[in-house]
Amino acid sequence: MLAEPSLAVFDSPLPLTSGASLPGGYQIAYETYGRLSPRADNAILVCHGLTANAHAAGRHAPADPKPGWWDQAIGPGRPLDTDNHLVVCSNLLGGCGGSSGPASPHPQDGRPWALRWPVLTIADMVDAQARLADRLGIERWRAVVGGCMGGFQVLEWLARYPARVDDALAISTSARVSAHTLALWEVVREAIRRDPAFQGGDYYGGPAPLAGMGLGTMFGMMIWMSRQVMAQRFGLRLAQGHEPRYTLEPEFAIQAFFQQVAQNGARGFDPNSLIYLTKAMDFFDLSRGRPSLAQAFAGGRARVLLVSYDSDWRYPPEDSEELRQAMAAAGLVAEHLVLHSEFGHGAFIYDSAGVGRAMAEFLA
Amino acid sequence: MLAEPSLAVFDSPLPLTSGASLPGGYQIAYETYGRLSPRADNAILVCHGLTANAHAAGRHAPADPKPGWWDQAIGPGRPLDTDNHLVVCSNLLGGCGGSSGPASPHPQDGRPWALRWPVLTIADMVDAQARLADRLGIERWRAVVGGCMGGFQVLEWLARYPARVDDALAISTSARVSAHTLALWEVVREAIRRDPAFQGGDYYGGPAPLAGMGLGTMFGMMIWMSRQVMAQRFGLRLAQGHEPRYTLEPEFAIQAFFQQVAQNGARGFDPNSLIYLTKAMDFFDLSRGRPSLAQAFAGGRARVLLVSYDSDWRYPPEDSEELRQAMAAAGLVAEHLVLHSEFGHGAFIYDSAGVGRAMAEFLA
Repeated sequence: MLAEPSLAVFDSPLPLTSGASLPGGYQIAYETYGRLSPRADNAILVCHGLTANAHAAGRHAPADPKPGWWDQAIGPGRPLDTDNHLVVCSNLLGGCGGSSGPASPHPQDGRPWALRWPVLTIADMVDAQARLADRLGIERWRAVVGGCMGGFQVLEWLARYPARVDDALAISTSARVSAHTLALWEVVREAIRRDPAFQGGDYYGGPAPLAGMGLGTMFGMMIWMSRQVMAQRFGLRLAQGHEPRYTLEPEFAIQAFFQQVAQNGARGFDPNSLIYLTKAMDFFDLSRGRPSLAQAFAGGRARVLLVSYDSDWRYPPEDSEELRQAMAAAGLVAEHLVLHSEFGHGAFIYDSAGVGRAMAEFLA
Repeated sequence: MLAEPSLAVFDSPLPLTSGASLPGGYQIAYETYGRLSPRADNAILVCHGLTANAHAAGRHAPADPKPGWWDQAIGPGRPLDTDNHLVVCSNLLGGCGGSSGPASPHPQDGRPWALRWPVLTIADMVDAQARLADRLGIERWRAVVGGCMGGFQVLEWLARYPARVDDALAISTSARVSAHTLALWEVVREAIRRDPAFQGGDYYGGPAPLAGMGLGTMFGMMIWMSRQVMAQRFGLRLAQGHEPRYTLEPEFAIQAFFQQVAQNGARGFDPNSLIYLTKAMDFFDLSRGRPSLAQAFAGGRARVLLVSYDSDWRYPPEDSEELRQAMAAAGLVAEHLVLHSEFGHGAFIYDSAGVGRAMAEFLA
């Protein structure tokens, strides 16, 4: 399947949760797979996670080595079936995959926004998606789908635009981040900020803070990959030979792997975007300012499937169960499915067969 | 209780696991609490963990704000009772608490060893402790006690000097590190190495790589403190006020705490020592080079108490159980006690009542 990047530019300012507003002229990068039906009732929005982008499926050119980040789930005959749906995925506002963000030119001086870029919330990002839906002529989504930070967006869609969502599928997600996640993002951001190349965020045109990004990426991998998966994939195997050499080098295979992660993981993602996107996650709490979590879903009519993984200790099944109960209390038809996987938080991407089946059945 | 730092200098070279040897003239810092009996049969060795030192109990001066790191466990009438024992704690070789290490002068040029310091193993460190025991006239330890990396030393004592240990108490420990720990140390070391102030380890006399140490410390805290403890102690509380301000500052209380950890945690510990001590942990595997783990304990006569914590996922109860079975197979009298605590890996220091009772009963 060939995928074509598209761009939408918005002229009116976007009011933000913080009270500030993003000036008009900002843009949203997106891709679509399949065709919108004449009644515009077959569109599915896929919301991406922290480090992904609008390229969810297919290849931009036949020779591309890898397809989009959720290609297993999107395409003809796949769970999000493009034979009879239009699947839309847009890059998050504040990201670095074509949508406006800290690397974009500031309208006043044409220099990158850098840390002048405003702090956004998931709600702000969803508002930007809603404007994109308007632009595409999609009044109601047949379904809104996403995992982790993508799941946060699904939940904000239900909270902010209850009349615009038929079905919602929120995977490996939660009504709010944990204290642990707040700490994690702070450490990742600090790794970037402590890199002298960071220059207070004004590194555009100079060397990027790749050392800090590499550290942050190693660090994220450390939290993301479970102790069990590390033991199974690497164990105590040495990178070379069968006996330790007792040097200061990374002698073990898992250490060599983490060094690779630090080298490769830092490429292609704007450090300032990582700062802003993790900030948006920090502030995500559907209960904030509401008398109860159920209140967030008041007035909704969506059918909801929540999927969690038994091995996901970052967004454990209890978090999805709390959401299901709040949704049920608000009158939504909500189901919660706990899947088994060893892959923990990344399971919906790296071990997607189970969630694929569940999605296909749910949407059928 | 007043504690007095002591120093022992050793003239003969120390042969190392790597095949290299540490030149004579190296020193070991230690403290003792209580008195050695006339028959020299009441001495207890306390082995410290990664970032601790020989100052295990009491105060160096009455005005010291804090006593030694395990003061709850050591003193008159305490579990390691100094009324009738001599308790000894020595700073690890390669550390920075008075024993020789990378910051010490190299015998050839008087400049700090820095990364010329040899890679040591836990076995090497225990050999250095055995020489200190000789110096103190202690042929057999009444008990050898330690948690985590201190537990590794207890296990090496049993493996290398089976005739010199009466009782052994190994807390929150394991026969080997996990792949997860190998990855963790690699990331901590990389945080230090990527600090430009690190200068390939030759930072003595210039600014220390405090930024990298701070990051490494934040990172270690992230792994060390459990998700549950973070939720209980901090939750999603803001550092100031009741409403988010949507800034790039660390707005949440747990984030402010982690920033403090990065500021304070980096002080007073030599980054090169952290590199060498974590390296020693990397290479710790009691099974390596032996047909079975039980073989490590062959010929031993010690009575052993293994203590683990239900919430310690880094060195979980299964690891202690594996040790108990291997010890039993080798003919040792080994008992394994699983304690409950919310504190995970740090429980034996921060929630020490349970282990204190167990130690007192075991030694009685």
